[in-house]
Amino acid sequence: MISFESDYNNGCHEAILKRLIETNNERATGYGLDDYCTAAKEKIRLICDKPEADVFFLVGGTQTNATVIDAMLHSYQGVLSVETGHINVHESGAIEFGGHKVLALPSHDGKMDANELNQWLQAFYDDIAYEHMVFPGMVYITFATEMGTIYTLDELRAISDVCKKYDLPLFVDGARLGYGLMAEGCDVSIQQLADLCDVFYLGGTKCGALCGEAVVFPHHNAPAHFFTIVKQHGALLAKGRLLGIQFDVLMQDHLYFNIARHAVEQAMRLRDAFIAKGYEMYSNSPTNQQFVLLDRETIARLEKDFVFEQWFPVGEKMNCRFVTSWATLPEDVDALIAAL
Amino acid sequence: MISFESDYNNGCHEAILKRLIETNNERATGYGLDDYCTAAKEKIRLICDKPEADVFFLVGGTQTNATVIDAMLHSYQGVLSVETGHINVHESGAIEFGGHKVLALPSHDGKMDANELNQWLQAFYDDIAYEHMVFPGMVYITFATEMGTIYTLDELRAISDVCKKYDLPLFVDGARLGYGLMAEGCDVSIQQLADLCDVFYLGGTKCGALCGEAVVFPHHNAPAHFFTIVKQHGALLAKGRLLGIQFDVLMQDHLYFNIARHAVEQAMRLRDAFIAKGYEMYSNSPTNQQFVLLDRETIARLEKDFVFEQWFPVGEKMNCRFVTSWATLPEDVDALIAAL
Amino acid sequence: MISFESDYNNGCHEAILKRLIETNNERATGYGLDDYCTAAKEKIRLICDKPEADVFFLVGGTQTNATVIDAMLHSYQGVLSVETGHINVHESGAIEFGGHKVLALPSHDGKMDANELNQWLQAFYDDIAYEHMVFPGMVYITFATEMGTIYTLDELRAISDVCKKYDLPLFVDGARLGYGLMAEGCDVSIQQLADLCDVFYLGGTKCGALCGEAVVFPHHNAPAHFFTIVKQHGALLAKGRLLGIQFDVLMQDHLYFNIARHAVEQAMRLRDAFIAKGYEMYSNSPTNQQFVLLDRETIARLEKDFVFEQWFPVGEKMNCRFVTSWATLPEDVDALIAAL
Amino acid sequence: MISFESDYNNGCHEAILKRLIETNNERATGYGLDDYCTAAKEKIRLICDKPEADVFFLVGGTQTNATVIDAMLHSYQGVLSVETGHINVHESGAIEFGGHKVLALPSHDGKMDANELNQWLQAFYDDIAYEHMVFPGMVYITFATEMGTIYTLDELRAISDVCKKYDLPLFVDGARLGYGLMAEGCDVSIQQLADLCDVFYLGGTKCGALCGEAVVFPHHNAPAHFFTIVKQHGALLAKGRLLGIQFDVLMQDHLYFNIARHAVEQAMRLRDAFIAKGYEMYSNSPTNQQFVLLDRETIARLEKDFVFEQWFPVGEKMNCRFVTSWATLPEDVDALIAAL
Repeated sequence: MISFESDYNNGCHEAILKRLIETNNERATGYGLDDYCTAAKEKIRLICDKPEADVFFLVGGTQTNATVIDAMLHSYQGVLSVETGHINVHESGAIEFGGHKVLALPSHDGKMDANELNQWLQAFYDDIAYEHMVFPGMVYITFATEMGTIYTLDELRAISDVCKKYDLPLFVDGARLGYGLMAEGCDVSIQQLADLCDVFYLGGTKCGALCGEAVVFPHHNAPAHFFTIVKQHGALLAKGRLLGIQFDVLMQDHLYFNIARHAVEQAMRLRDAFIAKGYEMYSNSPTNQQFVLLDRETIARLEKDFVFEQWFPVGEKMNCRFVTSWATLPEDVDALIAAL
Repeated sequence: MISFESDYNNGCHEAILKRLIETNNERATGYGLDDYCTAAKEKIRLICDKPEADVFFLVGGTQTNATVIDAMLHSYQGVLSVETGHINVHESGAIEFGGHKVLALPSHDGKMDANELNQWLQAFYDDIAYEHMVFPGMVYITFATEMGTIYTLDELRAISDVCKKYDLPLFVDGARLGYGLMAEGCDVSIQQLADLCDVFYLGGTKCGALCGEAVVFPHHNAPAHFFTIVKQHGALLAKGRLLGIQFDVLMQDHLYFNIARHAVEQAMRLRDAFIAKGYEMYSNSPTNQQFVLLDRETIARLEKDFVFEQWFPVGEKMNCRFVTSWATLPEDVDALIAAL
Repeated sequence: MISFESDYNNGCHEAILKRLIETNNERATGYGLDDYCTAAKEKIRLICDKPEADVFFLVGGTQTNATVIDAMLHSYQGVLSVETGHINVHESGAIEFGGHKVLALPSHDGKMDANELNQWLQAFYDDIAYEHMVFPGMVYITFATEMGTIYTLDELRAISDVCKKYDLPLFVDGARLGYGLMAEGCDVSIQQLADLCDVFYLGGTKCGALCGEAVVFPHHNAPAHFFTIVKQHGALLAKGRLLGIQFDVLMQDHLYFNIARHAVEQAMRLRDAFIAKGYEMYSNSPTNQQFVLLDRETIARLEKDFVFEQWFPVGEKMNCRFVTSWATLPEDVDALIAAL
Repeated sequence: MISFESDYNNGCHEAILKRLIETNNERATGYGLDDYCTAAKEKIRLICDKPEADVFFLVGGTQTNATVIDAMLHSYQGVLSVETGHINVHESGAIEFGGHKVLALPSHDGKMDANELNQWLQAFYDDIAYEHMVFPGMVYITFATEMGTIYTLDELRAISDVCKKYDLPLFVDGARLGYGLMAEGCDVSIQQLADLCDVFYLGGTKCGALCGEAVVFPHHNAPAHFFTIVKQHGALLAKGRLLGIQFDVLMQDHLYFNIARHAVEQAMRLRDAFIAKGYEMYSNSPTNQQFVLLDRETIARLEKDFVFEQWFPVGEKMNCRFVTSWATLPEDVDALIAAL
């Protein structure tokens, strides 16, 4: 069986594994105060061109979203997200567990529209009863989105401008940031992203690591005592070295970006083949997640040799997801293309 | 100035005031353990024809919604409500403060559609990732709704059937229950309502009392230690007698329903006049809240003598709310009709 | 039966009742935006000599404590209180419901010791692992305490000084503030109290009102959007007039303090009689709550004619509480003294 | 520098590392649904002699405590722990973040006394105001404790009996379970532990793994939808294989227990040397954590070559902690003994 099930069903990139082996017998202080974490943080600051950035390593995506959002919101505030945003759908209410409402805006292939955001905010403050409502306290977007799409630099700037206008921090969920920045046609650099938002993370779990997300507050703007907030959320890893080592490797020689580019290239080959053979794509994704509408017969046929997820029905067909990763072999893509 | 601003800007019905005066010098145990509360609870059980019902008195609506919902949900569950439901809009995130998501369904003039509810639940359990989502744990509806509308008995039964099918408790927010049950054309009795739901409340604040909501678990099905849960939510009144006395009076000789009927009658006079004079109603409300689209000139003219709320723009016009109550004088309605 | 059970088992002071009757037919905007609230707030500012103070009216004590504490703490902070503090014992976990730990210090007849507070704080910041602990975020004391005791001005200043040293807000729970300030030997004025703390409240429920607590941020230092926070906690009364009217009356012509003084005078008569007849007092209380150790026979005898609470056993005897209030009749105290 | 700083500053046991290398290129389903997790769970059931046990893998200790406790408590309940319990001191308020109070009992070298527990519970239900208090909902103990001590089988039974009497689940925090069960003189087996409690965990982080705690509900008594609760708490690892692989190795051929025994043996050598050389021990610990009182000179001398923590002053001396682990080399202990 060849798997296109997800980008988190392999172990880790071999360079990481190698480093884990090399360092295994060294002793290090716990809780992220070790030298590996220090080195990895420095590399991230360099890559982002933000020498003052505050960097923290957390374990997983839901945890990171819940911790960052809770840390940055006041109790009476909620977070603005598109309806299909991960925090609004697939985190089992982790945001609400922290006491905050997700204020949902329409999704455009997974993306937020700056004009709609602006209109929502204007309508909120125009409402005679807004003091009886949940205040907007933050804007949350994903890059790449859950639909595989990405924002252009102009779109990102427009959202950032609205956020500044209403004094709202902008949070970019980068669980798949590598695949987003290396996407076909992406015109956003990580430095620009860091400029335009107030906090984002470089997802490790889906981009080559065993686990780990690197949270970056680019403007030295981490909430006070964020370390303790992370601990309170159960998100502080005792052996922080495990995260430090992995990100130190990923940030070395652009490994993080190189392996993401590989995944995108394989996904583009797959997308082109789908289109060439007349399949209808559910969304136009330039990243490592491809969504295609398949009929029952095709699904039954492909399932014999390939693993992929069936998301939801669209008319008579099924919206199916094929995901590549840093670990996807070109010959596996060849095999799938041949089978189409 | 004549006010149609809300149904909670008077003091209380004179019969309540009279009783507060009579009983003022009597001493009573605190926290709802007094004889007034006992008597009021018994009257409510009789009116509902539910001799086994558990009854509790809380102070206000948001508090009651937050306490009941939090008490009945597991931590991983959310509450289903229409988008326009009070808990989803005008309670400053009190439900999320308790850790729960409001799962929003489409609103049809403030009402939930049983078929849409059923489809939502079916889709939820069909979703391959539902264990990563917020579980539905309760259905919340308002009677009368925020738009002034009411459910027919058939509609209520259909929703109750879906709830039973999916083993979900049904909670009826009755902040305006009196006005709902006494609405023009209402075919639901309080006994039927008590049969069909798992918990509801008789709103006092908007129906003649100074404050107070009577929560009824009709089937002796209050959550264990609900008293303590109420206290934990800051919703336990020390001088519970204040609530007991008021509901004892309201439940005497159908006062609660009689004064609600009066309010509805005045609202119907108003509605008929709006329609007769060619105004466009925003919704078809048979209760004490009337929503009508007015242009700027009309608003400016009426504002000189009348108080009412401008909710939101609809095209060039404004959706304006006129509310009657137990305290509305027929001559005030006459004056407004004359001014139209 | 003559009751010394509590200070919240009567109705309200007759002057309040009179005003409720007079104003009942007037219409007022909801949610505390009415003229009665405005007038009452202004009177409170005058009495405290704090023209800039922010004043809010909430319904009950637990609710007020939970709302104020949650509003002023960061998520990673707890509140320092003596072990016997109301928030640590008798609020069903309302503070923890808001996500905050109560950090307990030793109680000295219900009072906090400034030196112990200072030592606790010093030890906290000296701890190598303090970033893994709950940060102190506020100091909470009660005035009068649950044991009936009060702080001297020097004691209050000492606590305030420690708070300033560690940049911690000081919150004074004044559920029984009237009885505290009017206590025998009290050398603290309300103006001094307002100077020394960051937030306090004038308890209405136990001092003559039907319900209601007036929260005062003396230095125009209410948390941003406190109105919405109050709403989120279910603590915003729709008919805010009910609270405004009551405090407007209580603040008129020192009524609040006069009726508290009366209660204290009756309590002192009772205390003197206990002592004169050889009973052992559990604490030395100069306020309206008297704690005395009684044996079984005495309890059995007194219970025939008097209502009082048995708190907990002390050796062979029982610590019994006798409470006077604004409503206590001198002849009731005479009767109890005669029965001793 | 030779480190006795903690039992979590190495990488992982080499057998785990080997297996991670071997399996790195295999693909596995996420979220703990993979074959490694399945195999590891089966081994744990066998070792505990509980074929029906529910087993879950979480990432870290604070997270595990917060998730388990929140999942098993009702909202109005707190958890009983000794004052020195990890959840009461060093988890930054993670339990309170979930809405629950930690109800603290006296600590006896880190241990709870069954009689004191019984007395506390009796006093609680005897209290006239217990419905205004936080209900006890669970008993939490650590094994080994934070002071390095362990419970005898009789002590554990006595606590378990009290729990059964009051219908309270017993939760054993096993962050250092290996070191506890392999302690000198321990007469408790893992099967007996599983019999006597309702939930416990086998700590991986401090016993040889990179991360991971294996939560066991021995009587097939996991709370409904615990998977979703874990996700909601941000504690569900996407690459669950990382945890499954590690526990599969640790549970193979008693590795978990063998490496713990090694650590204890080294600790006993160290303890014997301390005592032989006349040092005063802070507690009598039969496990891998040794606490000894050292004066400034000794500390200064030892710090040149050894890493250890200074916990808190005891009189003129300092309570210092020396920790061995699965990774402690006998020659390192030799060196420290020589230096004493």
